[in-house]
Amino acid sequence: MSEKKKKEGGLAGIIAGKTAICTVGDGHSLRYRGYDIYELAEHASFEEVAFLLLYGELPNKKELEDFNKKLFSFRILPQAVREILKLIPKDSHPMDVMRTGVSALGNFMREKEDFSNQDEIALQILGASPSILLYWHAYHIHKKELDFESKKDSVLKDCTAKFFLETLHQKEVPQLWVEAMNVSLILYAEHEFNASTFTTRIISSTLSDLHSSVVGGIGALKGPLHGGANEAAMELLNSIPKVDSVIEIMQKKLENKEKIMGFGHRVYVTSDPRNVVIKQWSRKLGESVGNAELYDKSEVIEKFMWESKKLFPNLDFYSASAYHFMGIKTEYFTPIFIMSRESGWIGHIFEQRKDNKLIRPNAEYIGVGDRKFVPLEKRS
Amino acid sequence: MSEKKKKEGGLAGIIAGKTAICTVGDGHSLRYRGYDIYELAEHASFEEVAFLLLYGELPNKKELEDFNKKLFSFRILPQAVREILKLIPKDSHPMDVMRTGVSALGNFMREKEDFSNQDEIALQILGASPSILLYWHAYHIHKKELDFESKKDSVLKDCTAKFFLETLHQKEVPQLWVEAMNVSLILYAEHEFNASTFTTRIISSTLSDLHSSVVGGIGALKGPLHGGANEAAMELLNSIPKVDSVIEIMQKKLENKEKIMGFGHRVYVTSDPRNVVIKQWSRKLGESVGNAELYDKSEVIEKFMWESKKLFPNLDFYSASAYHFMGIKTEYFTPIFIMSRESGWIGHIFEQRKDNKLIRPNAEYIGVGDRKFVPLEKRS
Repeated sequence: MSEKKKKEGGLAGIIAGKTAICTVGDGHSLRYRGYDIYELAEHASFEEVAFLLLYGELPNKKELEDFNKKLFSFRILPQAVREILKLIPKDSHPMDVMRTGVSALGNFMREKEDFSNQDEIALQILGASPSILLYWHAYHIHKKELDFESKKDSVLKDCTAKFFLETLHQKEVPQLWVEAMNVSLILYAEHEFNASTFTTRIISSTLSDLHSSVVGGIGALKGPLHGGANEAAMELLNSIPKVDSVIEIMQKKLENKEKIMGFGHRVYVTSDPRNVVIKQWSRKLGESVGNAELYDKSEVIEKFMWESKKLFPNLDFYSASAYHFMGIKTEYFTPIFIMSRESGWIGHIFEQRKDNKLIRPNAEYIGVGDRKFVPLEKRS
Repeated sequence: MSEKKKKEGGLAGIIAGKTAICTVGDGHSLRYRGYDIYELAEHASFEEVAFLLLYGELPNKKELEDFNKKLFSFRILPQAVREILKLIPKDSHPMDVMRTGVSALGNFMREKEDFSNQDEIALQILGASPSILLYWHAYHIHKKELDFESKKDSVLKDCTAKFFLETLHQKEVPQLWVEAMNVSLILYAEHEFNASTFTTRIISSTLSDLHSSVVGGIGALKGPLHGGANEAAMELLNSIPKVDSVIEIMQKKLENKEKIMGFGHRVYVTSDPRNVVIKQWSRKLGESVGNAELYDKSEVIEKFMWESKKLFPNLDFYSASAYHFMGIKTEYFTPIFIMSRESGWIGHIFEQRKDNKLIRPNAEYIGVGDRKFVPLEKRS
């Protein structure tokens, strides 16, 4: 694709607003609120990053404790939301479950019209989102109703990464997995005016509520050109049986003009800065579970895509294998993306509200000219 | 507000894409697919207009029959969606009910990833939406489970306006009401790149599904700066006890810099072309139910706003009194807007899919510069 073509349409290159939350730099680096993504991924917890995105500064110890206490308390879902999740079929798309679950949540704790309880609602959405997937999963896959109340200690104390992984697998998981998931949640948390974040900003620009905005974000994230890409990357890996067959199969895909998911990025020029981080975690996880093949396959695909198309892997590509190594079903990759990106969305919604103006662009009309109405009886 | 200030930010005046669905002309007129809104409002049924918006041409008799048959069949909600609606509390915001109901619907009939069943899904959403509000309303207000099956004749044959009004009121309604509601559904159906429609286009630009896109649209429509304005207009009317007190109260509101809802419009310059239509229906309905006061009050407010602020009433203003005359609760005004605007949204989603490019703008970074990470223990 030529650079020129790449820039046309889809608001590419158009400045749609201002933000103090995130900069993708000159198309090479990524910073949240001025902090380099590498430092955050190495030193911070996801919860600290979520606080940073929402409020602009890293929390001190007391602030983080208060934040986590409230956040974790919302993991205990309202009973009616549990009943609704039971009614959503086993074969539903997990993103539809998340969208419906977060939307349902808004009926049980409502944001006030003056947004005076927006902090509370933000934590409700962030805290409850993992539980929505976990509850639905446990009920339909393990025929078990998650009893958050009886596990109160871990429910109310574990970090998001540990709570999610251990509730999903219903057992303790290696510390390495918890660390990898924590890093992944940080990497996925925020990315400027991506399609889902821009969606949440438009919705909140009408002065709609947090639940409505986040639910719109989930809908946008579902698409394979956005959040759905990490699942598509896993499907790509699954479509290649072994390392030896990578080149042959990839060449065929390119000849058939198949879209290769997990490569290239609208704002990055030569590489996705998040890739080097998730790649090393994918390697470590692969080694720890004794599955070198999948990682090796990924590396050969990476090399092939660069040599043949000058396309680099984005965050989604090695996230796929990393999640797979942690025993996570492919269909849950994008729901995990939600649990992380909600922190960025809500940061943007808060920011939009501070200096709001309705986002309402214009269109170029290319349809038929004026024509006279013809009554139904006279239409052929 | 000066013209300059009006045009800044919020993508105002920015061409965000092309459309063949609707033109707001030079800021004075409105046409759907080339047909003047006045001709459509006078001669067409809402269902014909929905077909026009989705497919580009008015249907012939056979096409309309097939379209309506399918559309009306989706009024019979899946049992699990009814159970979910029962679980949504009586004091929920009806827009949250609609958002959750349409989202839930997507779990029971899923759009295929290649969109090959998009026509079916479109009709499911359009057909089921009135039933979502009606079922929830009947269950929580009248303690009655709507039995769509026993009323099959009217459920499967009545036009949307008649079905909605008679199921809501649980009795026959005057033909005048059916005609007025039909016109209102036509007027609200489509309006170029308004905030909710643009939301649905962004969501579908990720190649997400119809339910996700429409649910995002509902979220955007909920905001008082968008669809919520018709409810806010009713509250304005309610805040003024009688015609005599209009001037005094309105002057106070302006002095207090209250935002007066139902006046002015981002794209129209001197008037909203839809106003003259809905205004005459509001007058007729007011006369027919013997409530001249509310209509007269509206006219005095209109005159006051023009003389003092050069602001004209938009579609929302007289829609408020028109709906009120038909015995509709204020909280249901925006849900009715959904039932209508979904036809425009889906037309835009179909159009976006035909020549898709991910909608992903850029942002201007105005945040803090680069800074070093400080470990938790060292933060004050």
